[in-house]
Amino acid sequence: MTQHVSANNTAGNVAVGLDFGTLSGRAVVVRVSDGAELGTAVHSYRHGVITDRLPGSSITLAAETALQDPEDYRQVLSRAVPAALRDAGVDPSQVIGVGAAFTASTCMPVTAEGVPLCEIAPYTPRPHAWPKLWRHHAAQPEADAVNAAAAELGEPWLSRYGGRISCEWQLAKALQVLREDPELYHRADRWIEAADWIVWQLCGTETRNVCTAGYKGQFQDGSWPSREFLGALHPEFADFAHDKLDHPLSQLGDRAGGLTAEAAARTGLPEGTPVAVGNVDAHVTAASARTTRPGRMLAIMGTSTCHVMNSDVLAEVPGMCGQVLGGIVPGAWGYEAGQSGVGDVFAWFVDTQAPPEAHERARADGVSVHDVLAEETADDPVGAHGLVALDWHSGNRSVLVDHDLSGVLAGLTLATRPAEIYRALVEATAFGTRTIIDAFEKAGVPVHDLTVAGGMVERPHVLRIYADVLGRPLRLVSSALACAVGAAAHAAVAAGAHPDIHAASAAMGGVREHTVDPDPERTAAYEELYALYTELHDHFGRGGTRSLHRLRELRNAARKGNP
Amino acid sequence: MTQHVSANNTAGNVAVGLDFGTLSGRAVVVRVSDGAELGTAVHSYRHGVITDRLPGSSITLAAETALQDPEDYRQVLSRAVPAALRDAGVDPSQVIGVGAAFTASTCMPVTAEGVPLCEIAPYTPRPHAWPKLWRHHAAQPEADAVNAAAAELGEPWLSRYGGRISCEWQLAKALQVLREDPELYHRADRWIEAADWIVWQLCGTETRNVCTAGYKGQFQDGSWPSREFLGALHPEFADFAHDKLDHPLSQLGDRAGGLTAEAAARTGLPEGTPVAVGNVDAHVTAASARTTRPGRMLAIMGTSTCHVMNSDVLAEVPGMCGQVLGGIVPGAWGYEAGQSGVGDVFAWFVDTQAPPEAHERARADGVSVHDVLAEETADDPVGAHGLVALDWHSGNRSVLVDHDLSGVLAGLTLATRPAEIYRALVEATAFGTRTIIDAFEKAGVPVHDLTVAGGMVERPHVLRIYADVLGRPLRLVSSALACAVGAAAHAAVAAGAHPDIHAASAAMGGVREHTVDPDPERTAAYEELYALYTELHDHFGRGGTRSLHRLRELRNAARKGNP
Repeated sequence: MTQHVSANNTAGNVAVGLDFGTLSGRAVVVRVSDGAELGTAVHSYRHGVITDRLPGSSITLAAETALQDPEDYRQVLSRAVPAALRDAGVDPSQVIGVGAAFTASTCMPVTAEGVPLCEIAPYTPRPHAWPKLWRHHAAQPEADAVNAAAAELGEPWLSRYGGRISCEWQLAKALQVLREDPELYHRADRWIEAADWIVWQLCGTETRNVCTAGYKGQFQDGSWPSREFLGALHPEFADFAHDKLDHPLSQLGDRAGGLTAEAAARTGLPEGTPVAVGNVDAHVTAASARTTRPGRMLAIMGTSTCHVMNSDVLAEVPGMCGQVLGGIVPGAWGYEAGQSGVGDVFAWFVDTQAPPEAHERARADGVSVHDVLAEETADDPVGAHGLVALDWHSGNRSVLVDHDLSGVLAGLTLATRPAEIYRALVEATAFGTRTIIDAFEKAGVPVHDLTVAGGMVERPHVLRIYADVLGRPLRLVSSALACAVGAAAHAAVAAGAHPDIHAASAAMGGVREHTVDPDPERTAAYEELYALYTELHDHFGRGGTRSLHRLRELRNAARKGNP
Repeated sequence: MTQHVSANNTAGNVAVGLDFGTLSGRAVVVRVSDGAELGTAVHSYRHGVITDRLPGSSITLAAETALQDPEDYRQVLSRAVPAALRDAGVDPSQVIGVGAAFTASTCMPVTAEGVPLCEIAPYTPRPHAWPKLWRHHAAQPEADAVNAAAAELGEPWLSRYGGRISCEWQLAKALQVLREDPELYHRADRWIEAADWIVWQLCGTETRNVCTAGYKGQFQDGSWPSREFLGALHPEFADFAHDKLDHPLSQLGDRAGGLTAEAAARTGLPEGTPVAVGNVDAHVTAASARTTRPGRMLAIMGTSTCHVMNSDVLAEVPGMCGQVLGGIVPGAWGYEAGQSGVGDVFAWFVDTQAPPEAHERARADGVSVHDVLAEETADDPVGAHGLVALDWHSGNRSVLVDHDLSGVLAGLTLATRPAEIYRALVEATAFGTRTIIDAFEKAGVPVHDLTVAGGMVERPHVLRIYADVLGRPLRLVSSALACAVGAAAHAAVAAGAHPDIHAASAAMGGVREHTVDPDPERTAAYEELYALYTELHDHFGRGGTRSLHRLRELRNAARKGNP
């Protein structure tokens, strides 16, 4: 895991970056001067994602519920940090700062002292006392209510989120608690993002970062959603922001405080070590990818894709997940867009529809089925498969913001091979990215270049198709632990080792020497296929037909009728 | 193979039915009084389908070429007929007649005596001297020329064929010979369907049946296509019909003649045994399926589906393969419609996209992968998969007559399982059949009931979906050799054992006791899915978008550019 460098590890200051993911948390020890990754360690959450029953309980949870145990987060501090220090072979006194990035919106009800309600005995058996993981989708009715009310009342912030709030975000999740367990809701003194909560655990004081407040809490232009709006959702929700959220916001890279004695004991770091304010996994990665300057788009491509980019321009770009002033670096508008299904669409095809021969060849050649399928069409001319797909198997976030859409595949013949369908699916996600970039540029927000992070960095066939479809060179982030390194860069800023995130990014971030460059002929050939994609995209996605929605309605009704 | 009946085989008269298929010819010995199948035998063609090089030659053939060897047809007479008689245990003297059905349009150039030009030494090395099998598709440019000229000159017969002539038919194939080997074309005294040629071999005289003349030769309202029209295609083609086709037409069930001494020697049957006029495999099956009366539709469902139905009504039904007076039984309008891809679409999915687990389960359970996939969704409510497909993987014959269309699949999600896609494909072909039936009824041609023949008779899951989608009970033909039995019924009519095809059909044909009945609830539920199918069908097929055509053009161009 660790990149052991020849330089003397004891020379120079280091920062500790923490990346709290969905199933585990990682600590990385990074040299402040040049970003060298000196040591790392992972701690897997004991309870992972809690979906069926609460730990040690027979209480079953509602469908689409996804909870976590805050003690699992603390254990990352107690176990991964010391292990990473040992792996790095550095003395704790060299650590100048700690930074953390978290999944979001992962949020929870806590006491005024920051104690999660699930850790207070009478509330432990109540599901709503537990942190709701980002992918808790049970608050969809509440999200629908938020969207309906925001549209009706003409809330000014709505357009900054593509006109639609996700059920994964704070408002919907908190409203669900109020609706379903009002007593517990009222017992919560505060409602807090896990990104801010872990910082509270580290330095003993509550802080709120501008990133999660903006992207996940709808804090815009200096205000939370209004009393009137919140009260329209539920009379007892009117004071939600005032009572449970309100707090001076911290800019990213700010110092939240110093390690408490308790946190120092857990981590093995000196008491008082500076702690950066919390951040979100995708956004913090801009620092390690050197994409903190305006117009540098970062695509974190994994099972899904998250696009983050700074700009000096404030414009309404359709289908954004959010646009937040200072949401990535202070002073710039941070834009976030997303594609709901990318790597998981490819995996779905491989897992369910790759024929036995493809699996056998993969075994024989010691490669993945993805590689087998990709290799088979790698030299085919653009369009030779006669296919175009819509990549909406998980719905569409940007630019349509419609999760009731679904995938389409057109052009099938009896000669169509599975490898051709696989390629059409990869191309469809590349067309989806192009649709997003086009939307930025059409709105007057320039996209100068594109850097890729995430699992797809290791899939050359995917990268090549993206470069050809986009007609742009792809820069590839160097670090395989880019999120944790980004958190370390923020720690270095909080500790004053670099003047700002841009400087920390320049020193500690990095991209690979070689870009993935488009082939001009293939790029030209993709124009026509992209035009066909756009035609289908607009027909199925912009009201030409309601057929995909109707299919989903029929599906849902049929499944309800016969469970 | 043979259904050995308890009755004394020597009692009663029998007829011999011959079914000349794509790879083999079958003979069946059928009791005239009740249709009992007493014996059968198959002879596989030595040269099968000739696609790469001529037999015994190094001459390679053009792409899409599909030829056959007429000697293979004769060997069916020499081998299968005696073997079927032995299998039946009947005395040749009991055979009152012989009938033959053939694939169509399978056609060839011959001398005035009926000798195929390929059997005359100087012509043997010339590909155009050989019979062109129905699925010879190399005459597409000629079919395009025929269609363009017919549309331009307003040929009155064009609408009887859905506005478009197939490259599989006589005109295109003969025109290809003239264009590419004019000397050979002019050497041919006659141009004849294999259905009529085999009868010529049996009884020594040329006959022409009304069925192939109408469906495959565009003989309508008493005339072949005009001199003017044919001359417009090529000046030397003007006399094609007059010189090479013209001959009094025989009605189906007519006696063409009696067995020649040579044919008697080949078959082991008495010289002079009555021979029925030739017929086409699909159309002759109406007799064994008891669907000779008006409004009884017969669907022969295999790799593709052919629908044949008699009616008293002459109306323009969109997308017909043909409507011919007397084309199925004398005196009625015989309609033929078709779906280009049915069983082969299911097989394509199973062969290319069924995952290893489905194959393993099939092996473990000793069933087919089709059964495994079908079983998995058998109890799912209608629409629970959220999918709708367009079944155009082989293009669309009826009702759109557009072979540049291709398949579409809509509604895919990450939860979509291969068995659900399989079911959606089966449903799509059922929707395709419903589209055809609706077209008949909308044109004022009533469809009273539906009988199924062909391989799908043995696929209960397919039949159930069809019954539910169509909201009609399906009658199933009894005989597994329905085509050959239909030919035997025609032989019985030609021999005078039954007064007409209806009577022969009543006596010798048969359907199973039980029908496959629709479930009213599922039928009602399918209404909505069918509406979605129709919406997509019309969007992609009737000009809402050219995207499927454009995809094919791009594919063809890409493949040409990089072979």
